Amino acid sequence: MRTVRFRDPAGNVRRGEWSGQPGDEITLRTNYGGRVALGNETFLPEEIDVLPPCDPSKIVCVGLNYEDHAIEQNESIPERPSYFLKPPSTVAGHGDTITLPAGKERIDYEAELAVVIADTCKNVRAKNAMDVVAGFTCLNDISNRDDQSIEQNWVRGKAFDGSAPIGPVISRPENVANDASIQLWVNGDCKQDSTIDELIVPIEALIEELTSFMTLRSGDIISTGTPAGVGPLRDGDEVDIEIDGIGTLSHTVRIP
Amino acid sequence: MRTVRFRDPAGNVRRGEWSGQPGDEITLRTNYGGRVALGNETFLPEEIDVLPPCDPSKIVCVGLNYEDHAIEQNESIPERPSYFLKPPSTVAGHGDTITLPAGKERIDYEAELAVVIADTCKNVRAKNAMDVVAGFTCLNDISNRDDQSIEQNWVRGKAFDGSAPIGPVISRPENVANDASIQLWVNGDCKQDSTIDELIVPIEALIEELTSFMTLRSGDIISTGTPAGVGPLRDGDEVDIEIDGIGTLSHTVRIP
Repeated sequence: MRTVRFRDPAGNVRRGEWSGQPGDEITLRTNYGGRVALGNETFLPEEIDVLPPCDPSKIVCVGLNYEDHAIEQNESIPERPSYFLKPPSTVAGHGDTITLPAGKERIDYEAELAVVIADTCKNVRAKNAMDVVAGFTCLNDISNRDDQSIEQNWVRGKAFDGSAPIGPVISRPENVANDASIQLWVNGDCKQDSTIDELIVPIEALIEELTSFMTLRSGDIISTGTPAGVGPLRDGDEVDIEIDGIGTLSHTVRIP
Repeated sequence: MRTVRFRDPAGNVRRGEWSGQPGDEITLRTNYGGRVALGNETFLPEEIDVLPPCDPSKIVCVGLNYEDHAIEQNESIPERPSYFLKPPSTVAGHGDTITLPAGKERIDYEAELAVVIADTCKNVRAKNAMDVVAGFTCLNDISNRDDQSIEQNWVRGKAFDGSAPIGPVISRPENVANDASIQLWVNGDCKQDSTIDELIVPIEALIEELTSFMTLRSGDIISTGTPAGVGPLRDGDEVDIEIDGIGTLSHTVRIP
């Protein structure tokens, strides 16, 4: 099941199921398949406005969780997960045009597999971790390197408005293979190309450790890190993040 | 005006005005004055259960914003504000008993003046900054030094459950003098004693810079940093933070 939150043609915000055959999903920019169903009602995907699929009270991101990305950043792999936070004001959705901070030398894309939490939880053991997962979505951890590189906590660098586009759907874990591909394109050029089994710290271990000190709530997100290939965004760039079994999150960037 | 959010004797969550003469407010542990009024209804403060006075979507904290605290931490004063984030799951309220992470060498109290935002805002100029402020409250920026000292972003160190007790009320800025005293007691011993005019970066400048890259929402908090005197908490400690013109935020800590 793939759940989409959307505005229908009458302007109402609703939540439906993106149904159809395998492959009937949002694929790279403007290609849609399937239908969006709520009970007996259905919509053509082209008729609706896709919204962020959840409303997180926090996004907990994991740094340096793919070896090839740690190498390209000249960083060693942390002994334990390196976390940072994005607040709700960073969220953007599929199809959005995101205005990035002006006057920076370098703002990068970072494609990530994002885990959406189903229910309020604390002290979850790894073996039960998938019980608290609603599903997976795509996230672009947009990063302002100018400020990130000189601040202790990455607030100017990672917590600016629009720095967390998410979507297009929440896909149930059973739809997403353990070795699903994760790819990012800029203006149609593939820049990142990996598989989610390259994660150093797996999802279950992240949930166990995070919930040992922090309550997670329904809609909260754990973003699991980015593979190699990160690079700069420029005004007008069209970004697509595709994870096999989820679909494609597409957005455009504007740099004033 | 001082606004309190509370549970009334019938169990309903309500918002009222803590009224009375100057000084008729929550003072150090268990001393209350005045009455809580909603229209024609009034309650004795002893009859109600005080709740966190707002429901922030994020708390933006400012590090090293008092010179004497920077000196005691052996840190230099940052060239620009040093921010970090606490998510909504850190919030606790007046009168709560807060369970802190077990097995840590040192978890510290830090008394802070917290600014509560009134309305959604972006790109606010310093000269208009007080227009977006609902008022002030007290905040204890509880800090797990074991983890804070070894992580890039202070998530284990500063974003654990209960690490942001706030309250007891939101006091309008006109009730709080520019040089109001800020004091913290542990078990009745005064540990921190300063005045809020010692802030290095003033509230107006913090609001201008933060809103240049981040939307603030109604109920969001900017916590403005702590003065000298921080120190460790132990199981059973009773903490009181009093800011003149606001009142006293009291809570107890439990370390399993």
